[in-house]
Amino acid sequence: MEIKFCTTCGSPTLLKIPPEDDHVRSVCSVCGLVHYNNPKMVVGCIPQWQGKILLCKRNIEPRSGKWTLPAGYLENGESVQAGAVRETREEALADVRIINPYRLFNILFVDQIYFMFRAAMTSDQFGPTTESSEVRLFDEKDIPWDKIAFEVIRQTLEHYFSDRKKGRYPFRIFDLA
Amino acid sequence: MEIKFCTTCGSPTLLKIPPEDDHVRSVCSVCGLVHYNNPKMVVGCIPQWQGKILLCKRNIEPRSGKWTLPAGYLENGESVQAGAVRETREEALADVRIINPYRLFNILFVDQIYFMFRAAMTSDQFGPTTESSEVRLFDEKDIPWDKIAFEVIRQTLEHYFSDRKKGRYPFRIFDLA
Repeated sequence: MEIKFCTTCGSPTLLKIPPEDDHVRSVCSVCGLVHYNNPKMVVGCIPQWQGKILLCKRNIEPRSGKWTLPAGYLENGESVQAGAVRETREEALADVRIINPYRLFNILFVDQIYFMFRAAMTSDQFGPTTESSEVRLFDEKDIPWDKIAFEVIRQTLEHYFSDRKKGRYPFRIFDLA
Repeated sequence: MEIKFCTTCGSPTLLKIPPEDDHVRSVCSVCGLVHYNNPKMVVGCIPQWQGKILLCKRNIEPRSGKWTLPAGYLENGESVQAGAVRETREEALADVRIINPYRLFNILFVDQIYFMFRAAMTSDQFGPTTESSEVRLFDEKDIPWDKIAFEVIRQTLEHYFSDRKKGRYPFRIFDLA
């Protein structure tokens, strides 16, 4: 989001390239503070239980009614692993143990870095939340491919089932343009 | 940094927990905009050339005069790979080709996520910059261990030389508390 006013003194900012910088920044017209706008990390996981995968039906926009994996913005003071575990609890009422980092997606057009883990559910407990109208375990053959909320989630799931056939899950990086 | 004024309307913010949230945020007292403050990604690499490693002597605070690997904040519109390549060019005037993702460090006390690659220099060209008073290739035995700028860089280098002896460089995640 554009920074129109200084976060420290409330004065209007100007868009300019600060000295010894090479990017346009919002610079305060009064106190000179340079505001940096950086990509945000979204952390999440593929929760597994006895060969099934846990998906959440979104109860909020965008893509309300479509299915997704638990994922959300990393918070300050939180590790990427802890963030993925927290999001799974918040969105699906499920507890997971992180297995391995699995995918990083650069999503340049929204300035997001998605970081997805494989994770094992520690029990078969889960349920709906304010963010998820329905939470359900799916066998591969039942995945609702035509109702997946986001391209990054569709690719994560496709890679996962492809890797599962090979029995190897190397960490890899992809760009979504 | 604390957000004392609204970035959209310039009015004072209040610290409070918005409805359906569980973190304290800076919320505008007039227009109600919620400001999120999230961890920043720092991307960098271990540039290799004929068994040597390229280090930069910092020319800026903090830790001016200490040695580091090229790394810096990921910019909007940039992939993590592209960011690491750019930082290496900016800080060391060196061109690299990314080999593999190598380490992620959660640095909770400064809300940073460090993401380090192994990279191959594409030539033996490099040199000092405004950010680096000196740039130099080091054999392992010559690494200035007592003059490394940051703990995260020291650990990255230690892991790298340890893994090099084994000939395997798995991607791994560590927390720096």
